[in-house]
Amino acid sequence: MSPLLKEIRHNPMLWLLAFVPVVFAAAKLRPEAHTLLFVLSVLAIVPLATLLSHATESVAAKTGDAAGGLLNATLGNLTELVIALTALRAGEYMLVKASIAGAIVANTLFMLGASFLLGGLKHHVQEYNRVTARVQAGLLFLATVALLVPSAIAAADSAAKVAIVQDLSLGLSVLLIVAYALGMLFSLKTHKEFFVSADHADDGEAPWPMGLALATLAGVTVLVALVSEIFVESVQKAAETFGMSQAFVGFIVVALVGGAAEMASAFSGARKDRLDLSVGIALGSASQIALFVAPVLVLLSYVIGPTPMSLQLWPGAVVMMLFATMTASMVTNSGRSAWFVGVLLLMVYSVFAMTLYLLPPS
Amino acid sequence: MSPLLKEIRHNPMLWLLAFVPVVFAAAKLRPEAHTLLFVLSVLAIVPLATLLSHATESVAAKTGDAAGGLLNATLGNLTELVIALTALRAGEYMLVKASIAGAIVANTLFMLGASFLLGGLKHHVQEYNRVTARVQAGLLFLATVALLVPSAIAAADSAAKVAIVQDLSLGLSVLLIVAYALGMLFSLKTHKEFFVSADHADDGEAPWPMGLALATLAGVTVLVALVSEIFVESVQKAAETFGMSQAFVGFIVVALVGGAAEMASAFSGARKDRLDLSVGIALGSASQIALFVAPVLVLLSYVIGPTPMSLQLWPGAVVMMLFATMTASMVTNSGRSAWFVGVLLLMVYSVFAMTLYLLPPS
Amino acid sequence: MSPLLKEIRHNPMLWLLAFVPVVFAAAKLRPEAHTLLFVLSVLAIVPLATLLSHATESVAAKTGDAAGGLLNATLGNLTELVIALTALRAGEYMLVKASIAGAIVANTLFMLGASFLLGGLKHHVQEYNRVTARVQAGLLFLATVALLVPSAIAAADSAAKVAIVQDLSLGLSVLLIVAYALGMLFSLKTHKEFFVSADHADDGEAPWPMGLALATLAGVTVLVALVSEIFVESVQKAAETFGMSQAFVGFIVVALVGGAAEMASAFSGARKDRLDLSVGIALGSASQIALFVAPVLVLLSYVIGPTPMSLQLWPGAVVMMLFATMTASMVTNSGRSAWFVGVLLLMVYSVFAMTLYLLPPS
Repeated sequence: MSPLLKEIRHNPMLWLLAFVPVVFAAAKLRPEAHTLLFVLSVLAIVPLATLLSHATESVAAKTGDAAGGLLNATLGNLTELVIALTALRAGEYMLVKASIAGAIVANTLFMLGASFLLGGLKHHVQEYNRVTARVQAGLLFLATVALLVPSAIAAADSAAKVAIVQDLSLGLSVLLIVAYALGMLFSLKTHKEFFVSADHADDGEAPWPMGLALATLAGVTVLVALVSEIFVESVQKAAETFGMSQAFVGFIVVALVGGAAEMASAFSGARKDRLDLSVGIALGSASQIALFVAPVLVLLSYVIGPTPMSLQLWPGAVVMMLFATMTASMVTNSGRSAWFVGVLLLMVYSVFAMTLYLLPPS
Repeated sequence: MSPLLKEIRHNPMLWLLAFVPVVFAAAKLRPEAHTLLFVLSVLAIVPLATLLSHATESVAAKTGDAAGGLLNATLGNLTELVIALTALRAGEYMLVKASIAGAIVANTLFMLGASFLLGGLKHHVQEYNRVTARVQAGLLFLATVALLVPSAIAAADSAAKVAIVQDLSLGLSVLLIVAYALGMLFSLKTHKEFFVSADHADDGEAPWPMGLALATLAGVTVLVALVSEIFVESVQKAAETFGMSQAFVGFIVVALVGGAAEMASAFSGARKDRLDLSVGIALGSASQIALFVAPVLVLLSYVIGPTPMSLQLWPGAVVMMLFATMTASMVTNSGRSAWFVGVLLLMVYSVFAMTLYLLPPS
Repeated sequence: MSPLLKEIRHNPMLWLLAFVPVVFAAAKLRPEAHTLLFVLSVLAIVPLATLLSHATESVAAKTGDAAGGLLNATLGNLTELVIALTALRAGEYMLVKASIAGAIVANTLFMLGASFLLGGLKHHVQEYNRVTARVQAGLLFLATVALLVPSAIAAADSAAKVAIVQDLSLGLSVLLIVAYALGMLFSLKTHKEFFVSADHADDGEAPWPMGLALATLAGVTVLVALVSEIFVESVQKAAETFGMSQAFVGFIVVALVGGAAEMASAFSGARKDRLDLSVGIALGSASQIALFVAPVLVLLSYVIGPTPMSLQLWPGAVVMMLFATMTASMVTNSGRSAWFVGVLLLMVYSVFAMTLYLLPPS
């Protein structure tokens, strides 16, 4: 257990792990203190997500390139997936959909923007491989378009019936998962030179031994699932207290909490002038949510949800996702960034957050 | 007649010409067998389109650069034009509009995507002239935007009256044709170095003698017109049998049938690692439909249609055309492609097809 | 006063200054001749805008780089601002909003398009710094998206209440002005090498002495304000005479009149093959209107308007602004232009103008 303890000692974010037992205790003792439980569960999920990401990387580093990459790519959004699954089981479909859309927007605007800003405050102009960024931005754009087609067309043609949108969502989910599998083949096998390996282990951290990594992976996933349950239960009531709509909670709060670990990696890459890493994490993670997390949730809703879930989003979410991915494509097009580009990306994100706060979808 | 016969012997696609007499015989003998007539007319149009394209190129090769290019560019979408004219005369405006929108989407997603996929299966990474591609994608984007303005604004402002949209369509058609004429001047005269000549004759095929080429051009156009009549008549009833909406037939079936000859050229270019040719055909043909075929049909609807036809499309078609041209612009931006880019383009096309199949416009 | 007189003698556009006294006399003598007053006020504003722009540059040249740049950037759209303020005080919010949206569209389509066309008629292919253009186009895109969010979301979610949109507009205006201030810091201080100084004084014109420049700045601003009052009063009635809607007047007429001075600079740059200058003026001016002029007008509407003004535009304007900025981003992406690109940009602008003329927002 020594590498795990050593890492906890050196990484202040992991000190938040102390909140994991606290949140369980609080849930037992004061189950009606929703706001407190909400805050505690957020504080507990963030370090768990960080641990999960380290464990995944350690397993990936040991199992060799292709299998490790596959693992890394598939488990990279494990926290988001577990939170969304908990909400799915509770039948909170609005929260699930908002968290999918919100995670894509948070990755392309907030994660990218904050990376550009943090990197730009330290380095005058940062260059990154624009060929790679363009390939990734192109993939993200296509993935988002595919995800948005049912909503966009349903919004345009108001006559679309609910049953048809559900059939379309199912067919689309199968298509997206096929595309995701082919994308794995592409990025891990035939064209891996285009993709920066999200290998944070070379930041001086030695990978953990296999047994520890696997045990951590299993144990922490269970903990995330348990804390997520408290989080999903309390978030609704807490949101009411803070005057937040369900859409705001899913779109902003859940998305930022779920992506905390990846954001930490992206920001640290930007500070070290390794912007390729930051851009790769942001765009790659957003693509993965569109091509993998979203369709898996639709398919699982047939098994574990009270009723099947469609991919139809409310119109405002469609507008935000389109703006966000178009922005990401245009901004990463030049292969260079400076602090003000980050400011503008963050500003667009703030505008979205403000709009959602004031203007909840009906 | 020997070059024509020789070509027919060497090109298996031309063996389908045998279906031309078959479809005429079937139309006479069993005029009520709509599904059969539909299938036979599709099988007959494909080789006729191929012949038409060869004849056009041969005439173009003989008449010299500028005039030949003009001919090639103007007659390049002759098959689409003849089919659409037949539908126009029959007053099937939904079919006409769907086939215009569908041809642009098929060129930018299906033709481009299949070219990238087929080329990418043979070559690891394919590079093409990105300056040329950007100029062409920019022209296509502007052409599509111009074409979409009436629909987009009519969709946004529901108060728009039908009469006004008709006036707007007429004015816009004149503008588009002027732009098309200037575009000819640009691509054939002042800046021809930016445009790959779609000269397939250097694939070892000697151009036909002038007399033969002109006779073929005239004769095959008449045949296409006659077969189109059977096609347009039967497609409606056949669609009902297959459970397809009119929008699906126009958008997907007519667009793919009408563009078969160009697709064959684009795919063969991609396999030979001449992706500039494929991209040029796909983007150029889409621009031509927006700038030339669509406005000509509007103007001709005043002469040969039962009532004037507007350029207003149903909202879902607007969304698809915008997504398709934006995608084409972004994807061709990098000047390089690999097989997975093709997969994603084809996936977006499949999503559109699936949506149209399940969710017909009201 | 000699440099001022000398400049007036050499610049034929300034001869139009003769219309300034004429318009005041006409307003006194024939206050009901709206069409005449409209034409005269347009003829008077154009040379005043030119003088204003020269005076600003002269002050900027004297006060040194940073302060001068700040002045130049802030006063660059002074004419637009004064006209809009006059309309704001009169409570003509439709005219104000149309002129904001119209100025952005006129800069990105008309100014850019005419620059490309005029430059392209003289030079075969014009190259410009595409890195700079991309940074500027990226900023413009983000600024426009931020400006459009309330309208886009309000349009998508019809349940949005008026009060909420007003709160959102206020919050957004504060955000935009903060972004503008940071953008000044970026373009004048930390990254000034990315921005072409819009320094027209090197066209052989010596800057004016400080006293003259300041006096001109003050005096001409007052004159513009007075003429604007006549313009705003007469434009409504004149528009009715010409059959133009208020949206058309604001979007097309006011935008072109207000931007006349900048357009003259941009076109002259394009003719001299200094396309960087033209692109910088067009994109920079559009960004400035989105990030500075629009939010300042919203904030001032609380002080000088009859009721607070929101940032919500009618849906057609949202569509046009999005198309215009996307087009600008795509077109400037390649770093090269030719005459036909200008033709297409102007065509899209004509389509917008035609649509607005025929299809006034309800």
